[in-house]
Amino acid sequence: MPQLIAVDWGTSSLRGARLDDAGRVLEEKSAPLGILNVPNGDFAGVFAAHFSDWMKPAGSVCLISGMAGSRQGWHEAPYVACPAGPDELRRRLHWIEPGRIALVPGLSDERDDVPDVMRGEEVQIFGAMRLADLSEGLFVLPGTHSKWATVQGGRITGFRTCMTGEFYGLLSQHSILALTLEADAPLDEAVFLRGVTRAGNDRGLLHNAFGVRALALFGRLSPAQSASYLSGLLIGEELRLEELPLGREVITIGASALTARYALALEQRGARVRTFGAEATWAGARALLG
Amino acid sequence: MPQLIAVDWGTSSLRGARLDDAGRVLEEKSAPLGILNVPNGDFAGVFAAHFSDWMKPAGSVCLISGMAGSRQGWHEAPYVACPAGPDELRRRLHWIEPGRIALVPGLSDERDDVPDVMRGEEVQIFGAMRLADLSEGLFVLPGTHSKWATVQGGRITGFRTCMTGEFYGLLSQHSILALTLEADAPLDEAVFLRGVTRAGNDRGLLHNAFGVRALALFGRLSPAQSASYLSGLLIGEELRLEELPLGREVITIGASALTARYALALEQRGARVRTFGAEATWAGARALLG
Repeated sequence: MPQLIAVDWGTSSLRGARLDDAGRVLEEKSAPLGILNVPNGDFAGVFAAHFSDWMKPAGSVCLISGMAGSRQGWHEAPYVACPAGPDELRRRLHWIEPGRIALVPGLSDERDDVPDVMRGEEVQIFGAMRLADLSEGLFVLPGTHSKWATVQGGRITGFRTCMTGEFYGLLSQHSILALTLEADAPLDEAVFLRGVTRAGNDRGLLHNAFGVRALALFGRLSPAQSASYLSGLLIGEELRLEELPLGREVITIGASALTARYALALEQRGARVRTFGAEATWAGARALLG
Repeated sequence: MPQLIAVDWGTSSLRGARLDDAGRVLEEKSAPLGILNVPNGDFAGVFAAHFSDWMKPAGSVCLISGMAGSRQGWHEAPYVACPAGPDELRRRLHWIEPGRIALVPGLSDERDDVPDVMRGEEVQIFGAMRLADLSEGLFVLPGTHSKWATVQGGRITGFRTCMTGEFYGLLSQHSILALTLEADAPLDEAVFLRGVTRAGNDRGLLHNAFGVRALALFGRLSPAQSASYLSGLLIGEELRLEELPLGREVITIGASALTARYALALEQRGARVRTFGAEATWAGARALLG
């Protein structure tokens, strides 16, 4: 087994880990050098500055996932269409130095006449599958653009992106709701769950969002509560459209501040939730090696 | 019959009309002096500067609708709860000079545990009812915060606000979609209607909005088309939740650039559309006099 360096190079940050044969993390590092912050587009230089030490041992292999493989990244690694698992992606790695440094392609879902895309999340899903020893299930990756992916037979069969985090930022900072909303307030769980429940009505997000304003005008939501309520409305809107039979296991992957909110909302719907963090990325890179 | 001066004093503009006994407009004026732009909060001064000439004839009455009656306006005229028609509002006029100058209260819909509110649109609806000779129907007022109101027995029985215009502004100018979208492009009707149709699926606005990005990445929507498609998605999301039996008459009220889009979308759903503009505001003030 070669020494594996796993790198997640996204829009806003660069993170890497050096793994042992069993996939255990020996060392990690990160820098605020997302693909939009690479000086002069010198991806090779930034890569070398951070990882050349780790790459010294003969036979070292580095797999880079995330937006580094996009058109705005180091090189474009074209999307692989679903259904796809680690085998399909391994065959379509985009080698920058053959046998040594590769970009992991993203996934596309083209079952519909409107395509959907992900870059980086597919590796996290493969990693969570490995860590949870699952070859099927529902995987949720909350974030600016949340992903809901279905896995069957060890492959991602389809997924849905929701602009939940981005909508939260726009509404809480730039809309009329910002006038009576404290965006950084700590979570009020009860109010958050009221928002989740409210999203399940049949009046739509465009209307329910205005309810934040109306409740504030009527003195029924404080600025701190408004933040929790809006967060609940948006996450509830995401969940509203998922079939979640009672007791269904859902795997969430991401930073704990966000996955905790999804767990609250999912558990209210009767789902069982398991959560993974950064370790899913590293385990996913290991899964790609075979 | 006293001489009536009808004023619509909103967030961004001040408009007024002098009417004859039959409610015909003799003269109109407008200024970019919305309630947020009134110097030193001197509403009385701005009012006098624009309308004291018109108010000279003995017995002149001025009715002011819109945000001038909000907490941030001239005086707060508390909301009147639905169901309410011209009679209920006439009894609750907030007189600034008794018998001479009054603020029209807004409406609230409190059938639900989350209230909804409007200020100014109720007068436009009463006016359109009068002009169309209708005492029931579905009324749509597109805008930053669109209103869908149901009228029965000459009274507004309930309504729903949708933040459609505001979402369009946020998404087209401040989200990731802005990277590949020409917000001011002229309407492409076919692409707009594709967006309307797309909104009728069961995947939700948070997902469908991301489709604008994915379609652009795949070269299937130009920046100009993306604007029409996003507009269709949002208006389609509004329509999605309305029961619209084939041939149902819908009254739209507003500026023609917007009402034309709603007419396209509504007619695609099989509705019959009649449209009114500023004349609805003046006719509504007349209706309030009894």
